[in-house]
Amino acid sequence: EPTLNIPNFAKNILEDNFNDWGKYPPSIAIPSFGNSIIKYIERRYPSAKNLLTLDNNIVPVPGTREPLHLVGLLAKNLKGGKTIALVTNPFYHAWRAGSISSGSDIYWLNALPDNNYIPNISNISEKILNSSVIMYICSPSNPHGSVASLDYLKEAILLARKYNFILAVDECYCDIFRMNRPKPPGALEAAASLGKGLDKLIIFNSLSKRSNASGMRAGFIAGDKNIIESYKLLVSNGASPVPIPIQKVAASLYADEEHHTKACIHYDKNFSIVEKYLKPFYKDFKLPDAGFFLWLKVRDDQQAAKILWNKFSLRVMPGSFMGINVQGFNPGKGFLRISLVDNKEVIEEAMKRIQLFLQSEIS
Amino acid sequence: EPTLNIPNFAKNILEDNFNDWGKYPPSIAIPSFGNSIIKYIERRYPSAKNLLTLDNNIVPVPGTREPLHLVGLLAKNLKGGKTIALVTNPFYHAWRAGSISSGSDIYWLNALPDNNYIPNISNISEKILNSSVIMYICSPSNPHGSVASLDYLKEAILLARKYNFILAVDECYCDIFRMNRPKPPGALEAAASLGKGLDKLIIFNSLSKRSNASGMRAGFIAGDKNIIESYKLLVSNGASPVPIPIQKVAASLYADEEHHTKACIHYDKNFSIVEKYLKPFYKDFKLPDAGFFLWLKVRDDQQAAKILWNKFSLRVMPGSFMGINVQGFNPGKGFLRISLVDNKEVIEEAMKRIQLFLQSEIS
Repeated sequence: EPTLNIPNFAKNILEDNFNDWGKYPPSIAIPSFGNSIIKYIERRYPSAKNLLTLDNNIVPVPGTREPLHLVGLLAKNLKGGKTIALVTNPFYHAWRAGSISSGSDIYWLNALPDNNYIPNISNISEKILNSSVIMYICSPSNPHGSVASLDYLKEAILLARKYNFILAVDECYCDIFRMNRPKPPGALEAAASLGKGLDKLIIFNSLSKRSNASGMRAGFIAGDKNIIESYKLLVSNGASPVPIPIQKVAASLYADEEHHTKACIHYDKNFSIVEKYLKPFYKDFKLPDAGFFLWLKVRDDQQAAKILWNKFSLRVMPGSFMGINVQGFNPGKGFLRISLVDNKEVIEEAMKRIQLFLQSEIS
Repeated sequence: EPTLNIPNFAKNILEDNFNDWGKYPPSIAIPSFGNSIIKYIERRYPSAKNLLTLDNNIVPVPGTREPLHLVGLLAKNLKGGKTIALVTNPFYHAWRAGSISSGSDIYWLNALPDNNYIPNISNISEKILNSSVIMYICSPSNPHGSVASLDYLKEAILLARKYNFILAVDECYCDIFRMNRPKPPGALEAAASLGKGLDKLIIFNSLSKRSNASGMRAGFIAGDKNIIESYKLLVSNGASPVPIPIQKVAASLYADEEHHTKACIHYDKNFSIVEKYLKPFYKDFKLPDAGFFLWLKVRDDQQAAKILWNKFSLRVMPGSFMGINVQGFNPGKGFLRISLVDNKEVIEEAMKRIQLFLQSEIS
């Protein structure tokens, strides 16, 4: 989770709206939050502006973990017989939960260095695609911070439409990007450029990373009006609505770019520290375009994580713990996920220790 | 929703713990909330004291709508072949959602005046029970406010154990009871008196009614350690955890009886107004033992609701909208659900109008 703070204006909003904690939250967005989401989408994805209306295409959600799972329930009866869920590997647990709830077997799409960690979706067999009810992709990708191109997102949408499955695009990291690179394109923009509405597409957006507000559980999902309509029904029958005071805070957080820019600058600085210390050890060292994780190649990730903990008191995540072994191959193997959420002093100290570790590996 | 206020101490707790909105909530209870739940259970259901531990038997939930639904997912693979969910009728939508997510057909258990609106579970056929994966019952019952006896709850638990299904007991109204009657017994007490732990049982408890906090989305589920273990896994993979500031407020609300007693007195007064005005119209008029709804017999509920709205500007719910028609019979038909959450002036005025309506029906 981010270590920056939620902006202070959020505190005042909560204090001023205490009585709203007594009111049952609607399953849809309150007007101020709804308008803020619409304006945010217009700023962030200008070409998508005319694709959406609040009534038809948007639902507030308590973070994205729950809807990433529950959208699987909506995919359940899309096709008869044994169905398949297409899921990026390494994976976030909610994608797998959704696949299970869709009643499907999972066909894993490996995220590999060769394709900049954006899984190849051009070579999935017709047979698999015909049985698929949902595809989970993620851009910027977690944990690598790679950004899918607009063309890639268009290809994914076209596949979903051709083979009639739900395309779930996890865009939780869309607002954590390097300031000197283009903003990550969104699937809504890809849909806009295809010109046929939002058919089959649903995107997941959250304040957890953008606003350092992972404890608030606030975000929205947007997309295909049939999926959204079913999702609203699901929320009012058996999922969590977003409390009204949280919706009011979320309205302000989506409207404010200042705190979000500060967060990006914070991560940019941390990545420049990373580059300074680690670049010398890698022939083709490249910082990720987005996100706040470093996905670092090492010889043996589990061994490296152990050494870093035992000898350097650094806690990092072995990549192989984040991926699943498919036919003897785990795409997370040989990588460490290193979180860069702390302040620059902590990051600098951590990089010094990783430098020492890498030196010891060479010698 | 209740119209009383959340106690003011909740405001201070939220203000003092603003920074916790930035921390990712755990799927389990933070210690203060966990301890408060344990102590609440000890006070409310003393005999259940030794049945539970925080680690094994309790999960915090964002209200009970979501877990009442999602527990259905845990029932999904309990039995092979076509399965059945046993559901009280009239019903709360989350019970039906859970039944659907369990992949089952629903066998409706009608709540009728003959059995004090607590559905008869003694006459369900062996064949149905053998296929059942979950049973939803509710005490105090919604919308009638009837209280199931300890013996009834024991019978339900024994059925669940004999036929291997999950017994989901919705106890959302357990703390809204008439002060001059015994407290509604809980399924945890029934389990305690059976002496074989919490096997197959899960109960749902919420602050929405107890603390007028339906907008906070806070409560807990407690029961069978296997079900709880699976539910925790479900939350960490794809459902909503309870934000830490909300858990801190919830800890205080479960610990405080003063505001809860005030709420009961408020409803008691409203029911005494109801009695004064409506008793003369009914031969065997009886106030419900619990809850804050009046379940009023009328000739034609849909017609009555229309007249009350058109001629008396009173909004009430036709009972037939809350039940489902099973083989030509809807157990909600012929009743109105009248909410008694407002202050006594409003209730008195409403009862005067209902009196006029009932007089017009007779003449």
